[in-house]
Amino acid sequence: MQSVKIGILGLGTVGSGTVSVLKRNAREISRRAGRDIEIFTAADRDTDKNFDCDLTGVALTDDAFSVVNNPEVQIVVELIGGTGVARDLVMQAIDNGKHVVTANKALIAMHGNELFANAQEKGVTIAFEAAVAGGIPIIKAMREGLAGNRIEWLAGIINGTGNYILTEMRDKGRNFSDVLVEAQALGYAEADPTFDVEGIDAAHKLTIMASIAFGIPLQFYKCYTEGISKIAQEDVQYAAELGYRIKHLGIAKRTASGVELRVHPTLIPHRRLIANVNGVMNAVVVKGDAVGPTLYYGAGAGSEPTASAVVADIVDIVRALTSDPENRVPHLAFQPDAIKDTPILPMSEVTTSYYLRIQTEDKPGVLANITRIFSEQGINIEAILQKQPEDDEGLVPIIMLTQPVAEQNMDEAIAQIEALDTVKTTIMRIRMETLG
Amino acid sequence: MQSVKIGILGLGTVGSGTVSVLKRNAREISRRAGRDIEIFTAADRDTDKNFDCDLTGVALTDDAFSVVNNPEVQIVVELIGGTGVARDLVMQAIDNGKHVVTANKALIAMHGNELFANAQEKGVTIAFEAAVAGGIPIIKAMREGLAGNRIEWLAGIINGTGNYILTEMRDKGRNFSDVLVEAQALGYAEADPTFDVEGIDAAHKLTIMASIAFGIPLQFYKCYTEGISKIAQEDVQYAAELGYRIKHLGIAKRTASGVELRVHPTLIPHRRLIANVNGVMNAVVVKGDAVGPTLYYGAGAGSEPTASAVVADIVDIVRALTSDPENRVPHLAFQPDAIKDTPILPMSEVTTSYYLRIQTEDKPGVLANITRIFSEQGINIEAILQKQPEDDEGLVPIIMLTQPVAEQNMDEAIAQIEALDTVKTTIMRIRMETLG
Repeated sequence: MQSVKIGILGLGTVGSGTVSVLKRNAREISRRAGRDIEIFTAADRDTDKNFDCDLTGVALTDDAFSVVNNPEVQIVVELIGGTGVARDLVMQAIDNGKHVVTANKALIAMHGNELFANAQEKGVTIAFEAAVAGGIPIIKAMREGLAGNRIEWLAGIINGTGNYILTEMRDKGRNFSDVLVEAQALGYAEADPTFDVEGIDAAHKLTIMASIAFGIPLQFYKCYTEGISKIAQEDVQYAAELGYRIKHLGIAKRTASGVELRVHPTLIPHRRLIANVNGVMNAVVVKGDAVGPTLYYGAGAGSEPTASAVVADIVDIVRALTSDPENRVPHLAFQPDAIKDTPILPMSEVTTSYYLRIQTEDKPGVLANITRIFSEQGINIEAILQKQPEDDEGLVPIIMLTQPVAEQNMDEAIAQIEALDTVKTTIMRIRMETLG
Repeated sequence: MQSVKIGILGLGTVGSGTVSVLKRNAREISRRAGRDIEIFTAADRDTDKNFDCDLTGVALTDDAFSVVNNPEVQIVVELIGGTGVARDLVMQAIDNGKHVVTANKALIAMHGNELFANAQEKGVTIAFEAAVAGGIPIIKAMREGLAGNRIEWLAGIINGTGNYILTEMRDKGRNFSDVLVEAQALGYAEADPTFDVEGIDAAHKLTIMASIAFGIPLQFYKCYTEGISKIAQEDVQYAAELGYRIKHLGIAKRTASGVELRVHPTLIPHRRLIANVNGVMNAVVVKGDAVGPTLYYGAGAGSEPTASAVVADIVDIVRALTSDPENRVPHLAFQPDAIKDTPILPMSEVTTSYYLRIQTEDKPGVLANITRIFSEQGINIEAILQKQPEDDEGLVPIIMLTQPVAEQNMDEAIAQIEALDTVKTTIMRIRMETLG
C-alpha cells in the first residue's frame, strides 16, 4: 500500500521528538497502521540550526504555508504553538482538505469551535490528543473508552511545573519561591512562570476535557483560574496533619444548574491515588456513572511523551483515511448537532468544602466571633486545629475545615471575619474535594 | 439515521448491567455515536427469572442461536462466558457476518487467534475491551493511544479478588485464609477461588495484553502462573519494613531473547503509584519507549464497570460500520500479517531480583554457608534483614533481597540452601520488580 505523506510545522521540542519517534519506530508503527508514514516535508523558521532529530530524506523549508499548500501532503502536523500563525496554518490546511494533528492546547481551547466547524464542513479531522496531558491518551479514553457513560466529573493534575513545585514543598519543606527558582534552573518552569503557575495552561487543557466530557462548546474564557503562588509551607504542613495533600487541580463537574469549570489549589485526601502523583507527572481522574472513578497517569509534557500522542493521532487518521466522515469519532466526542450550550456556573454558585487558615490574636472570644459568623452564613465546621502562637507578635493560626458551602456565602463570611479587630492578616482559603 | 440493532447473549451480572447502561444513557450514547442503539433481542437460559434490568421492548428468548442467526441483528454481544457454547455462538455470529462484542477473557485468550482469523476473513470486528480489567479502557489505550511506541513492558493488578486479599493482609495484619473466607462471604471471591487466587484469570488477561503490546499471537498456555495463597502475614510485614508492597501482578516484558509472560506475587517499591492501588481496584502500568511509564486505573470487574467497556465497544463498532475493513484498528493492534511469533521465555531464563525468607537455626556459620552458595551461583545480595528468633523452636528468619539473577540459578541456590542441616523449612521466595 502507498505510504501516507505528512508535513510537520515546527521542529522544536515536540517537532523533533515526533520526527525521532516516527523514524525510530517506523517498522513498529507500520505494523500497526498497515501503511508507512513518510515525513514528506517539514517547516521551521530557521532551517540552518542544529535540529535534535535526523532529517534525512525530509524536504526542509522555512515557509510553513508551502507545507499546508503542498498537494502531496495528506496530514499536517502543527507543532508551532500559539494562536497566531498556527491558527492561520491550520485553517489553510483544512481549507485544502488536509487532516490536521496538533499539540496546541491554546489553539484548541480558544479557537476549537470554529476550527472543528470548518473541519466538519471540509470532511477532515483535527486530532489533538497531544494538547492535553502530553503522552496520556486521555482524550481517547474519555471520547471513546468511556462512551457509554454519563460523565459526572473529572479532576486532573495537568500542569507538571505546578505539581513539581507542590511536591517539593511537601517532600522537602521548601517554600514556593525557592522551588520555583530551582524549577526554572532545571528547565521545568519558564522564565515567565505565569502561564504554568497561575493555571492558564491547565485552564486550556481543562476547557478541552470538559467539552469532551459533557458535550458542551469550548469556553476557555469562562474557566475560573487560581494559581499556587499563595500556598505557604505551613498550609502544606497543616493539610498533611489533617490527612490531606494540596494539588493544583483542574476540575470540571456537572451539576443540576450548570457545569463547574475551575482550576485552583485543592486539598484532597492523601489516600486517593491522585494525591500520590508526584513531581512533573500528570494524572486525570474521570468519574463515569457506569464505570465509577478511573485514573490515567503519565508524563504530561516533554519531547517524546508528547510525540507519542502526536504519532497516535497520525495513526488514527491513517486508519480513518478511507472512512466515511459522518461516521468518524466526533472532535468533541459528541456529534456536532448534539453539542449543548449548558451554562458554565459562576464561581459564586460553586459549592465546595474549604480549608481556612486564620491568623488571630490569642484572646478570649475570638473563636466565638468566628463561629458566630459562620453560623450566620450557614457554614458548618468539620474540623478545627488551633496551634500555639507561632511568632513574636503572638498571633495564633486557627485551621478550619468546613462542610460544603456556596462560594458566595464563604466570601461573605471571610469578609466579616477579616473585619474583626482580632484578625490580623488575610485569611488563607483553599477549596477541598473528596474525589470519591 | 436508522438505529443499530444489537442482540445480547446472557443476562447475568454483565448482561443486565449492559442493558441498564444502554437504556439509562441512551440519549448520551446517541449524542456520541450519532445513531440510536437498539437492544433488539436478548437470550438467557432462563427467561422466567427476575432480571436485574428493564427488558421492556426487548424480544427475550432462551435460544441463543436464534439471536446470532437473526438477520436483523447487526452486533452480537456475548456475555455468557466460558469457552464452550460461547465459542460456538461467536463463530456462528462471525460466519453470519455480524460484529461481536465480548467480555469473555478465557475465550479470547484461548481461542482468539482462530476467532480473529475468521473475523478478518468475514470482514467483521470482534471487540473485547471488557475482557481485560473491566471498565478501564486499557485495550484501547495500548492499541491506539500508544500506537507510536515500542512497548517495553507492562505490569498490572488485574484480579480484584487477589488485590483485595493482599490489601486486607497489609492494612489489617490478617492472614490469607481469613481474608479469603471473608471475601467469599462478601461475594468478592468465588466458592472455588482457584481461578482468581492462583492467577488463572490474570493469566487470561495478561495473555491478551501481551499480544497487543508486542504483536505476538495469543499464547495462554505459555503463561507462567503462580498464586498468592502461600504469602504469609510476615512476608507482607517484612516487605513493608524494607519499603515494598506485595502485589499479585501480571507482567509481560520484551527482552532480547523473547517475551516474558508471567503472573506471580511481586514486591514493588511502595512509592510507585501502582503500589497504592488497593482493594478490588485494578491498574495497569504500560511502559512505552517514547511515552515512558503510563498507568490506567479503575474498577476491574462488576456489573456496570464491565458494561461501560461493552458499550464503548458497541459505539466503536457503530462508528466503524461503514468503514473499510482493511483500515479498521486490527484486533491485536498489529496487522494480521505483521504478527510475529516471538518466543515466550521459559521461566528458567527469566531474570528478576528476589525476596527470600529463610528459616534457619540460630547457629554460627549459617549465614556463611548461605552466602557461599549465593556466591557460587553468581547471586549478589542487595539487603539482609536478620530477625530475633520468632518461635519456641528458636528458628531465625533471615530476609534477603538479591540483585537480578536468572531463575535457574536461583532454583539451584535454593535447592542447595534447603539441603543444609541448619535450614529447617522451605524457603519463601517472591520475585521483585522496580517498575521504573
